[in-house]
Amino acid sequence: MELLNKRILQDGRCLEGGILKVNSFINEQMDPEMMSHIGQEFGKLYANCGVTKIMTIEASGIAPAIMTGLYMHLPVVFVKKKKPKTMGETLNTTVHSFTKDRNYNVCVSKEFLTSKDKVLIIDDFLAYGNAAKGMLDLARQAQAKIVGLGFVIEKTFQGGGEMLRKAGYRVESLAEVTSLDDGKITLK
Amino acid sequence: MELLNKRILQDGRCLEGGILKVNSFINEQMDPEMMSHIGQEFGKLYANCGVTKIMTIEASGIAPAIMTGLYMHLPVVFVKKKKPKTMGETLNTTVHSFTKDRNYNVCVSKEFLTSKDKVLIIDDFLAYGNAAKGMLDLARQAQAKIVGLGFVIEKTFQGGGEMLRKAGYRVESLAEVTSLDDGKITLK
Repeated sequence: MELLNKRILQDGRCLEGGILKVNSFINEQMDPEMMSHIGQEFGKLYANCGVTKIMTIEASGIAPAIMTGLYMHLPVVFVKKKKPKTMGETLNTTVHSFTKDRNYNVCVSKEFLTSKDKVLIIDDFLAYGNAAKGMLDLARQAQAKIVGLGFVIEKTFQGGGEMLRKAGYRVESLAEVTSLDDGKITLK
Repeated sequence: MELLNKRILQDGRCLEGGILKVNSFINEQMDPEMMSHIGQEFGKLYANCGVTKIMTIEASGIAPAIMTGLYMHLPVVFVKKKKPKTMGETLNTTVHSFTKDRNYNVCVSKEFLTSKDKVLIIDDFLAYGNAAKGMLDLARQAQAKIVGLGFVIEKTFQGGGEMLRKAGYRVESLAEVTSLDDGKITLK
């Protein structure tokens, strides 16, 4: 996605440890118009695939997921990191967060992820694929079908995309970062 | 907002302890088209007020905030509950969550909330006003100006709205729940 690639090269910064910082438009401050273009792009890529539900994980997945849901006219279910006391029965799994360096117990409402659902998973980053694995596990527990996964930015050198594609999943990433070596962002 | 009032009466449920459960379209599963209407409504209410930035708090504030940002053509800065190791200098405060029954240390990037900003705070619920107070404290630390606050649903009987209005803030709530007594949702 040309617009996104340009923006990453213009505003992105490399941090130590293979981290790409895109805080000015994705994960500390968000650019709603960019997110809207991102939603349209996922909507085009997964048009006519029978998707019935978008799934994402809080917090930075919500913006691209809600925009995708808007263009696909579909509800968005989101995986939570803390179970609020208002929440009924849940499906649960564990996810390791690379940027926060800890494990999370995450959960999703049983009411909104069921065996009738054909799910498109949307998230901001694909790195090692930990959050994606967690969401796939929740879908497996619900016996929901996975249509595919969509990521705003994939860091191809961290292997999550390879792992998911080898497992047979359709993975669409709008920007692919192939290297952050020597403080330089290289895109595919 | 008529569409929202109808949806609350149709899909909302009362839980014990003054909790309104609107999990099917706001905080476990989201309805992107409803969120889009909500964003347009806030955009109209705060048109021509000089707003330069939308501020919200993760996670359920993100969807209404990003839609408001889309219609107002403004960036959205979001307050985080955990500081990721990728984040630079932050402003920090503490927020008590009523539905999760705990205190959070929350933070926002210093880079994206500054004395130049004229801020519109957007969140899903206004109950006791704890999250709003936290965001107002962060804006005060940044010496940003507050133009106003917008909430999808205000529970007027929990006093947050009264507290904020008495303090001189403009508060716009798209739906006002005046009572949840006897398991019945009463709207203004």
